[in-house]
Parts: sequence; C-alpha cells; structure tokens
Amino acid sequence: MNTGAEVVVNRLLGEGVDVCFANPGTSEMHFVAALDAAPAMRPVLCLFEGVATGAADGYARIAGSPAATLLHLGPGMANGLANLHNARRAFSPVVNVVGDHATYHQPLDAPLESDIDALGHWAHGSVHRPASAADLDAAVHSAVQSASGAPGQVATLILPADYSWGSAPQNPLSDKVSSPQPAPGPGLDIADAAELLRAQGERVVLLLGGAATGADGLLAAERIRSGTGARVLVETFPARLTRGRGVPAIERLGYLAEQATQQLSGATHLVLVGAKAPVSFFAYPGKPSVLVPDGAEVRTLAVDDLTGLADELGGAVPDEAQPGPADLPTGPLNPQNLAQVIAALLPENAIISDEANTSGLFLPAATASSPRHDVLTLTGGAIGQGLPVAVGAAIAAPDRPVIALQSDGSAAYTISALWTMAREQLDVTVVILNNHAYAILQLELLRVGTQADGGRSRSLLDLSRPDIDFASIAQGFGVPATRAGTAEELAEQFRAALAEPGPHLIDAALPTWSPG
Amino acid sequence: MNTGAEVVVNRLLGEGVDVCFANPGTSEMHFVAALDAAPAMRPVLCLFEGVATGAADGYARIAGSPAATLLHLGPGMANGLANLHNARRAFSPVVNVVGDHATYHQPLDAPLESDIDALGHWAHGSVHRPASAADLDAAVHSAVQSASGAPGQVATLILPADYSWGSAPQNPLSDKVSSPQPAPGPGLDIADAAELLRAQGERVVLLLGGAATGADGLLAAERIRSGTGARVLVETFPARLTRGRGVPAIERLGYLAEQATQQLSGATHLVLVGAKAPVSFFAYPGKPSVLVPDGAEVRTLAVDDLTGLADELGGAVPDEAQPGPADLPTGPLNPQNLAQVIAALLPENAIISDEANTSGLFLPAATASSPRHDVLTLTGGAIGQGLPVAVGAAIAAPDRPVIALQSDGSAAYTISALWTMAREQLDVTVVILNNHAYAILQLELLRVGTQADGGRSRSLLDLSRPDIDFASIAQGFGVPATRAGTAEELAEQFRAALAEPGPHLIDAALPTWSPG
Repeated sequence: MNTGAEVVVNRLLGEGVDVCFANPGTSEMHFVAALDAAPAMRPVLCLFEGVATGAADGYARIAGSPAATLLHLGPGMANGLANLHNARRAFSPVVNVVGDHATYHQPLDAPLESDIDALGHWAHGSVHRPASAADLDAAVHSAVQSASGAPGQVATLILPADYSWGSAPQNPLSDKVSSPQPAPGPGLDIADAAELLRAQGERVVLLLGGAATGADGLLAAERIRSGTGARVLVETFPARLTRGRGVPAIERLGYLAEQATQQLSGATHLVLVGAKAPVSFFAYPGKPSVLVPDGAEVRTLAVDDLTGLADELGGAVPDEAQPGPADLPTGPLNPQNLAQVIAALLPENAIISDEANTSGLFLPAATASSPRHDVLTLTGGAIGQGLPVAVGAAIAAPDRPVIALQSDGSAAYTISALWTMAREQLDVTVVILNNHAYAILQLELLRVGTQADGGRSRSLLDLSRPDIDFASIAQGFGVPATRAGTAEELAEQFRAALAEPGPHLIDAALPTWSPG
Repeated sequence: MNTGAEVVVNRLLGEGVDVCFANPGTSEMHFVAALDAAPAMRPVLCLFEGVATGAADGYARIAGSPAATLLHLGPGMANGLANLHNARRAFSPVVNVVGDHATYHQPLDAPLESDIDALGHWAHGSVHRPASAADLDAAVHSAVQSASGAPGQVATLILPADYSWGSAPQNPLSDKVSSPQPAPGPGLDIADAAELLRAQGERVVLLLGGAATGADGLLAAERIRSGTGARVLVETFPARLTRGRGVPAIERLGYLAEQATQQLSGATHLVLVGAKAPVSFFAYPGKPSVLVPDGAEVRTLAVDDLTGLADELGGAVPDEAQPGPADLPTGPLNPQNLAQVIAALLPENAIISDEANTSGLFLPAATASSPRHDVLTLTGGAIGQGLPVAVGAAIAAPDRPVIALQSDGSAAYTISALWTMAREQLDVTVVILNNHAYAILQLELLRVGTQADGGRSRSLLDLSRPDIDFASIAQGFGVPATRAGTAEELAEQFRAALAEPGPHLIDAALPTWSPG
C-alpha cells in the first residue's frame, strides 16, 4: 500500500502526466513529499497560481497532452481561475490537483474552507471528488481521461488531506488515454461540402479553428480557396496557429466587430471547421453581436475531412516567391519597426506566446514570411496569460525557442512567471511592448460611445504615472534584462537574447500610446 | 435622465461610498466615463484585481464602511476572489461593481462570458443583478446595504454594459446606511455572564473577535480578567486588533493546534465575544480539528455588553509601568532583532498590515510596548493580502503611517500593489521579511507527518534559487527601495522611510530559513 498522495502521483505518471506546475500549501504537503519517490514527475514551482494554470495551458497547447497543476484549496484555485478560463476557451487539457482539508475538517468552516467544486464548474470543467482513499486511483484516471477527451477541457481532482496521508490501493495501469481531438460535429461530409463550394465559390466562408489551424489544415484550406474561390479565415483567437514560410498566411477574423463584419459580408454559407460560430468580443450600442451575416447558413465540417475535401476539389497551393531576408529598420522604436525587427530575426521553429495586444498590430503581416513558427493567442480574453503560457510552452518543447510578445499592462498580472523562467532556466525571450497605457481600453473608451471628456477617466487607462521599469523588475526576479529605445537596440538585444540559453527580457520602449 | 453608469456612481456616493479600487475593461468604460462628472468619487487604479479587492478589504477595516471595486467581468472578478475570501473572513463590507456583457450579448457565449453570480456566491456574499436599467438605482442601494449590514460582507453588483450606457432614473437619496456592527448572537446577558465568571473564574475563556478587538473591548476584557481570573484570548486572525502602550496585550489563540489546545486546556466554558468557536487551521493526522476542550460549554456574549460586564464585575486594569524606549539592537538581521527594530521605531498611531508569517514570530511580544497601533491580519489565510490591504488602509487613513510587514513568498502574489502605492503616493513603508523560503510550509511539511526526505520536495518550498531582489522590483514599480542586512541598516532605513512621505520598501535580508 502507498499513501494516497503516492497513488495520485503514480497514477498521473501512468496516464502520461509527468509535469506538475505547483504552488502548494499545507494540505498538499503529502503530494509534495510523494515527489521524492517519483523522479519521473517534474515539479515546476510557480509563485502564483495564475502562473501555474497558465503554464499548464501553454504546455497542453504545445505537447497536445495535459500537465497537472498543484493548487492550495479554494483560494489557491481562485488565483488560478482566470487562466483556466483561457484554457477552457483553448480546449486545453489540464488536470488540476487541488488539495482540500481532511474530510472530517471540512464541516468546521476553517479559515481556508470554501466551495472548491463551484470553482471547477465555473471553468466549465469536470470535477472529481473521490469518495474515499480507495477511490483515488480511479478518480485520477477519470480526471485525466476527462481532461484529455475530445476536445480537451479542465479537469479538477479534489484531494482531501486525509486521503493523501492515508493508505490507498493502486490498481494496474490502464492504457494511456489518447491525445485530445476536436469533436467532429454534425454537418457536411466531403461530397456535400465539395458540391456547396463548387456552386457558391466566394460566397462560402470557411472559418478554421481548433486543430484546423496547424500547417496541414491551413494548407488544405488554401488549396480549397485556390480551387473554388471560397474565402478562408482563422478564428480570432486560435489556441495554436502555425505561421511563416511555407504556410499560407490566412487572415484571422478581426477582433473588432466592424472588421469581422466586413470580412464576412456577402457570405451565404459559413462553414465551421473546428471553430465556433463567431460573435463579437463585446457588445457595443447599436452594433450587432452576432457576426454571422443575415440569412447566411451555418454548417460544420470535421477537421479530419479538410484534406480530403482539398484533394476532391483539386486546388493547388500557389507557388509564392520566397521573400529574401527583410532589411532591419532603424530609428526610434514604434509598433511598426518593432514588428519588423521581430519578423526579421525570428528563429526557425519558434513558439510565440502572443499577448502583445494593441502594440502587436503590425506583427501578423510582418511575421508571415518569417521561418515557420507557432503562435499561441489569448483565447479567453483574460489578460495575464502570455508569460505563464510561455513558461508552459518552454517546458513542453525545450528545444524550441519561445518568444513572449507581451504588452505592459497584461504583463503586470502574472509578472512572477519571470522567476519560474529563471529558476528553470527556460529558453524564453520576453519582449515587453511597453506603451505605458491600457491602450486597448483607450480605444474601447471611444468605441463604446462614452462621453468621457475628462482627465479622471483617462487616468484609469494610463500606466505612465509612474512608468513601469520592466528591466528592473525582471532583474529582481532573476532574469537578465535590457532596455531598447531604438530599432537598432532591439535588434542587437533580441539577437543576443536568442543566442544565449536561458530567459531574457527586453523592455521595448514604445511611444506612450494615446488614441487618435 | 442619466446614463445607467452615472446613476450607479451617484448612488454609490449617496450611500457614502466614495472610493473605488479599479481595474476596468471594455464593459466598464461607461462607469469610467461617469467618473469625470463625479469628482467626489476617488478612483484608485490597481494593476491586478487581487490588489483592488484586498485594498477594499483594508479600507473597510480602517474606515468601517465600504469602498467599491470595479472589476472586469467574470475573469476580472476571478482574479480578485482570494482577497474577497479574506474580506469575507474579516466581515469587511465591500461593494464589487462587476461589469457584464450587454444583456442581449450574454447568451452568445462570447470569449469573456462566464458565471459571475457563482463567483459572488463563492465569496458567501450577496449578488445583485438588476432586472433593467430602471432597477439600477435600487440595486446599488441594496448592494451597499447588504455589504454594510451586520456583521459586514461582500456584495456584488453585476452591471450589464447596456444598462450602463442606457438611460436610467435616479431616485431621491435615502439615508446613508449605518456602519457595520457585529450581529449580537443569542447567549449570555450581563447578569448570566457575571454569575458564570464569578463561579468559574479561570475555568472560563473569553475569546474576543470582530469589534471586540478594539481598545475598548480589550480594556473591558482585561478588567474582567483581573476581577475574576478568567482567561482572555483574541481570535487567531483578527480583522483589526489594537495594540501598544495603554492597551492590554492580550494573547492571540495560536495558529498551531498544539498551542491553541494548550491555551484552552482545562476550560469548562468558552464565551465567544464577536468570535467564532475555534477550529484548527488545518487538520493533521491524529490531531483534533475542533479546539473547544471536551465537555466545555460554548456561550456567546454580545460585544456591546463587554464594557457593562466589566463594570458589573468591577475589575481594574493593572497599572503597568510604561517601559522606556527599547535599545536598538545591532548585528546581522534575524527575526528577533528585526522585531526589536520595528518595535522601537514604530510611530504613534500606526497601522500594521501584517503578513509577516513565519518571520514575524517575535513581533507581537516586541510591539506590545510600542505606541498604540492597529494590526490588520490575514483573516482568511489566502496569501497575497498584505500589500493590497496596506493600500486600502492608507487611502482610508491618509494621516496615519502604514507599515506593511510582508513575507517574501506572499509578497510575490500581489506585488503590483507597489505601483498603486507609488501612483497615489501613499505613506506606506513596506518591510519585506525575506527569508528566501516558504518557511511556513517547510514547517508544515514536517508537521503533517510526511516522510519527505529528498531534495525534490524541499525544492518546492525554497525561494532562493534564484533569490528575489525586492528592492529592484520595487524600483521597477516606482517605489524607492533599499536593502538591509544588519539591524543598524534596518533601523536607519526604517527611520528614513517613516520620515519621508510616500511609499518606501526595505528588503530585509534574513538568514535563509530552514527547519530545525
């Protein structure tokens, strides 16, 4: 017999879960102790639970399989919720191990007591509360299965302290569960889809999401486009989007409803391939929330049928001339030349964790001809995702360079992720796009039709009083850091950061943003 | 007619809520805009929602009335939950204003959509979802009333964007609601209590909490003790405890169950005065969770009756000789001489936000003879409270010096609170008790009876790889900072920080903690 905690760790390993992003407390100490006897499990300490959950999301998007988190009761899980929300929207498999008070202690309303189940349900995930220590092994199995099943979700295992320290039986290991696959929806088969596309051509929009935004899906979609004239778009915030040379640079559906409406106008059919029917991110007075054009028919196509459909329709990928290496720009930094520097120096096979937000406007166009790379985007809109996701991606793919393109306002949410990068010596290059503002909100303040005309409202969107010195903060957390004020400085520092293993941060000083 | 957002701001002001700790997003932009026309409302920008909610808790503990928070949909509120849990345990009145999508946008499952009501209920608070824009005025009124009613709680007003931007009627202002008072529980009246105390003497323990831990309550309890021999204790984590010269230094119930059991042993009666019946913070194998001694009777006494009872029993406060100013210690810093420095230099009328945890062991004894001050403690055990609570306390009491005694591990949770201190030029002196470890967990790892024997488990409780340089981080957020390695340096820097207005941080380098 093992302790319950040992059973949990062994079962996680047996199911293929061998990384645990941890911020433990007293009720998790037996789990922590069990790690000593389980060298195959890699514990990664995070200074805040939002880092742990975001890292698990980033790990899952790259590895295609779940990592565990280790969280301290309800309040610890609460701190991790916002990035679990993003994970939910990314359909990332994540297995939370949340310690709970001993079962007989729970009714006493001790200070840290709270409703952990409610938090698991809030993230639209499954909640697994074992009925006894003997039930632990099966509960872990079902949590991993539930997380990993199509299309991937957040599973929460609640682990009472008395079950952790009690004895528990371990059952023989079952087969490892399969990697997450998008659920095939009802809808068009290949023959129906081919007929529709031949008949309607550019009046059909294919919207790609989920597993369709890898290289294979994008290439198939581009062949369909070239063969039929159909329009092809990628969902606004894909969990993982492959881009760069040799991959069609398919436009994303715009974040602003106006852009999206324009992109979809005139469509008679919208075919969802791993994506949801699009709605605007927010509502605005007098503007539509549903983005599907009036009268358009919405159909689905399984991601797995995309290549077959392309074969059927026979389109070829246009043979684009490979652009030569871009010239490096010069002069004071601005969002445009920053994007050019990143694009020109982006290494082969990079992973970009993209929370650049407003300052990142010019990045997609600039990086379309960079070497092939994957982009992980802000799926659920809960900011503070970028640095944690970069941690998880770097753990999942230690041989790939990870670039975190991170806006200043969002960086402050989960800034202690830098410490985990230093501790684990992760090969992450963080570029802070520091425009000293919640720029997106300055824009939104205008867009929602407010009559704001005073300094008081503007001051709530201004981060320049005082300016945040991210280089100083990074050094405080143990990450070497520099500041770049010109495109030349950024290029030199970005090149140096990529050349040297381990984490680096570049605080890129952009002009202070103000609307109009 | 005003916009709905204007109605909300005006009604908050009408109810006496004139500070708003804000981290807004798109759905809150009309509220932000409404601030321009409401100069009486003070908006305080926080870079993370956990700072906003913790600041509202600290504000309430000092002001005795609620501040508002402004949070961005469910994910924003999620980031603030852990400190709302602490506020709940402190019975602090807090009014959350949480923006929501426009009502017609909510069914579309837009990326940021989530169940906000569930989060409000998780914090054991009231949730107010207005039925229409016309209902806003009443909903704000009932949220403030609900937060402020005895004994104080978290009230959440959900504010859909279309109600914010729509027109709404404002009703005449009603009377301002009263400040929170602890609910008088059933139990002993003064005569019964006097009889019990006369008969049982030291076999009675009075446990003080809530409003009983101010100077009046402590003095009355001390008189009862001296008149009857009864034992008097303060709950383990009081929301606000008055201490220092002229105030009886009544012992707190121990955090460790062993201490608490010892303190309560032999009691036949436990009289709760504003406190709950004590349970241990966590459960441990083979140790009791309920701390009330076997067979002891638990009764309650209203806080308001404490002084009457003392009058009835006629005890006097012993006339203690006032100690002279303590000598300042010298030598390399350790938890003991750190406490002596703080105690010797603590200014009159200070507020201590206490999240010193393990390193703070010697503080209570040392500061008992300091000038009178208030201590705000970690009521709900959700770490990351100390810096935000200091922000709120400084806003509530601009003329009082605020000292945040902050452990290193907990500081990392909500570190961006430093930026708000800099922006608002709050008179807060932060002392980081930097022992490079989750020391409390190193202790707990032993206490819970684990067999941990390896470097892997210990590494999860170690913050020294790399060491965190809090002075560098503070400077990055705009707070002047120094490092102290000796008692002399700490004294010099602490004195200088107190003498100069605005925030300061001292990174106090303690020996790296290890158990045993």
